[in-house]
Amino acid sequence: MKQRKQIIDEMKERVFKANLKLPELGLVVLTWGNVSEINRELGVIVIKPSGLDYSQMTSSQMVVTDMEGEPLEGGLKPSSDLKSHVILYQHFEEISAIVHTHSRYAVSWSQSGRDLPVYGTTHADTFYGPVPTTRQLNNDEVDNEYEMNTGKVIVKTFQERQLSPLAIPGILVNGHGPFTWGANPNEAVENSLVLDEICSMAQLTETIMTSDNFLPQYVLDKHYFRKHGKNAYYGQK
Amino acid sequence: MKQRKQIIDEMKERVFKANLKLPELGLVVLTWGNVSEINRELGVIVIKPSGLDYSQMTSSQMVVTDMEGEPLEGGLKPSSDLKSHVILYQHFEEISAIVHTHSRYAVSWSQSGRDLPVYGTTHADTFYGPVPTTRQLNNDEVDNEYEMNTGKVIVKTFQERQLSPLAIPGILVNGHGPFTWGANPNEAVENSLVLDEICSMAQLTETIMTSDNFLPQYVLDKHYFRKHGKNAYYGQK
Amino acid sequence: MKQRKQIIDEMKERVFKANLKLPELGLVVLTWGNVSEINRELGVIVIKPSGLDYSQMTSSQMVVTDMEGEPLEGGLKPSSDLKSHVILYQHFEEISAIVHTHSRYAVSWSQSGRDLPVYGTTHADTFYGPVPTTRQLNNDEVDNEYEMNTGKVIVKTFQERQLSPLAIPGILVNGHGPFTWGANPNEAVENSLVLDEICSMAQLTETIMTSDNFLPQYVLDKHYFRKHGKNAYYGQK
Amino acid sequence: MKQRKQIIDEMKERVFKANLKLPELGLVVLTWGNVSEINRELGVIVIKPSGLDYSQMTSSQMVVTDMEGEPLEGGLKPSSDLKSHVILYQHFEEISAIVHTHSRYAVSWSQSGRDLPVYGTTHADTFYGPVPTTRQLNNDEVDNEYEMNTGKVIVKTFQERQLSPLAIPGILVNGHGPFTWGANPNEAVENSLVLDEICSMAQLTETIMTSDNFLPQYVLDKHYFRKHGKNAYYGQK
Repeated sequence: MKQRKQIIDEMKERVFKANLKLPELGLVVLTWGNVSEINRELGVIVIKPSGLDYSQMTSSQMVVTDMEGEPLEGGLKPSSDLKSHVILYQHFEEISAIVHTHSRYAVSWSQSGRDLPVYGTTHADTFYGPVPTTRQLNNDEVDNEYEMNTGKVIVKTFQERQLSPLAIPGILVNGHGPFTWGANPNEAVENSLVLDEICSMAQLTETIMTSDNFLPQYVLDKHYFRKHGKNAYYGQK
Repeated sequence: MKQRKQIIDEMKERVFKANLKLPELGLVVLTWGNVSEINRELGVIVIKPSGLDYSQMTSSQMVVTDMEGEPLEGGLKPSSDLKSHVILYQHFEEISAIVHTHSRYAVSWSQSGRDLPVYGTTHADTFYGPVPTTRQLNNDEVDNEYEMNTGKVIVKTFQERQLSPLAIPGILVNGHGPFTWGANPNEAVENSLVLDEICSMAQLTETIMTSDNFLPQYVLDKHYFRKHGKNAYYGQK
Repeated sequence: MKQRKQIIDEMKERVFKANLKLPELGLVVLTWGNVSEINRELGVIVIKPSGLDYSQMTSSQMVVTDMEGEPLEGGLKPSSDLKSHVILYQHFEEISAIVHTHSRYAVSWSQSGRDLPVYGTTHADTFYGPVPTTRQLNNDEVDNEYEMNTGKVIVKTFQERQLSPLAIPGILVNGHGPFTWGANPNEAVENSLVLDEICSMAQLTETIMTSDNFLPQYVLDKHYFRKHGKNAYYGQK
Repeated sequence: MKQRKQIIDEMKERVFKANLKLPELGLVVLTWGNVSEINRELGVIVIKPSGLDYSQMTSSQMVVTDMEGEPLEGGLKPSSDLKSHVILYQHFEEISAIVHTHSRYAVSWSQSGRDLPVYGTTHADTFYGPVPTTRQLNNDEVDNEYEMNTGKVIVKTFQERQLSPLAIPGILVNGHGPFTWGANPNEAVENSLVLDEICSMAQLTETIMTSDNFLPQYVLDKHYFRKHGKNAYYGQK
């Protein structure tokens, strides 16, 4: 059995590399993003430190916390968005990694307040339905425990619309930006990339289209289940 | 006479390199694209494996199939879009290579459901007329043999509109994205690049233009035939 | 105590590096930008020379002037926008560095004549309210001491709207482009990057949005003061 | 006195390097561009060969022609747009180099058929007034001596509107794309870059702006003459 320390070191390495991928993929400028990973057996979350320059950051600086987001090792302060991650991990038991960015196209949709419609198979390959945009938080939710309430409004949006976080691995927070998740940091980053790309495509499509042209439900089914679930046949194995 | 094995190895090399060009040219992120080549004399098609990371891929992993798309050598699974390629090769006898991508601007037009109008000579240099967008597939076509039916709706679109796959070396599949083709993998990739570029230009033009300004037919004729056919005078030789 | 020469050499180095960052970050093509820094104790301003190729420029070529913008060392001519910087330094005593660019999205907003509305937290993290656009200068202001009057219209805009240059570290000059500032050249460059990014996001948001969706004042408060002022908790320390 | 051969070799080198700059600056994909230079004393024009891959091209392959565009040295075929260049050189005696590209934003404006309005000082720094778009060529002009007539419609546009090719160093050919010029290949390339950039900015501005906001004539005067003519004070010396 692997030692606790070794497992956590590997988490730090994955979280570190996933954070570096964000600027590489053009999803983050400056320090506008963070990645975390959870290990529920060990009871730990690993997340990027707050406001650190990506070019200076090292793997060992990743912050280790317990399941409530309390730091376990001292060191640097965790990302200020940590409490949002904690809430998502508590309610979305199927997920093991979370990414938050301010990527241009996903933020632009978030700022519009609209859900992201399904216009094509690029969307359907990863998101099984429209990507929801949350409501705006109210004054009280912002003044008290803002980051926790950001997590809660995401969870509530999924509950009220009866959505599955596995089927829709991301959301747009109104006036803020995207959160995505996955089975590991890499998958969560890929979902951020997909979400930004389909936000850009949808924006362009709406400027081109002269009458509504949503993707039919049966194409959404086909493309999503071609890649996901027990009958998937995309990719190797 | 070249050995069968040598010819197939050269096909693999060309298909491999053409696949790598797609992310280099900004036409593909993640694994969103595939290139194939056919050799009708040998009765083989070579295509990218399904869902493989471009940075890990090697030339020898390219998948060899017969003319129906049945793998001949074992190894990896072919691209899930292979059956669309097979149908196009069966009906478009003039073409030897096919490219499918989810490039941003061509997908955005595909999602709009509109044909791509001819607004300029950049378009006319490669596509002799509007680039058609197919109709949406119906429920039955999607549930049964989806990839084959994607190929068939492309072929039907060309037949119904009496278009030549040589004169219009690509199409937009409604709600999905572009397919292009050519005499070899390189030419098919170039046609993908041109299609994405002219989709972006047309989108911008429509936001600028205050009254319709389609390219006159005689300029389309001039530019297309300046580069194609027996009276071409563009390029060397 | 550091020698005057050493302090000025360090200013030159910071101004030089900050200028080079502008093309690296995609904020400047050709010679369309300039950075300056002031040291009020020493009574000197250091600024980029006028119209010099970034790839040829050296740290020692940075121009040193007095507090009125009069060159102190001979050498190259200072940036033609120097007099705008001088006016800003005279009236905004809290700032120590200024950046001017012709970055694409910030210029596009400047050219529209509209203020930049607050649509999201990306904006709120750096600018505490809408980014103002100045009025157009009148004929007289342009014909006589144009660059000085550009500085003056910026100052007047802040005065008339009772804005603080610390809370709003930048402005859009009508028909021209952005000026940003900060505590040092690096911070002023970052504010230019943020301003260009939020201009692009706002433009996209307005094409997506179907009804107004401004960021509520309490979210603006929350995000701005999460990063700024004595109760800030973003970042380390 | 320099030898004829040496002067021509230096022209070839300049034309070659200017051609390579086009893809570097993102103004050209594939082979969509060409640069030429004229030496009126020697009676020669040097231009890029037709349809050659930029990555394979060498300086010595640049094509030398007489003042009518007739090749003087054998070798490769000149760019198919050569005759347009010849006409421009014959009528615009102040210019020594020409660039033609299919850069995305300038082509998009060309395709709209509209002149490019002056919305800002980025425009005014290089183009002293709106950049004209030609009329479409008629059927006859396209069928007979198309490239020559492309040159002629550019010249006619300048004559009819009483524009100076020094004050407006470029034009948009309707449905086609931009031609720019200058005192040398480098300056002509820079003018292409400026034109593409201001076309993008103008497109964005029009989507943002809620009421017309053209640059006042006196600001156009100020900015243009700050950089051009005997009272210029931008740049060194």
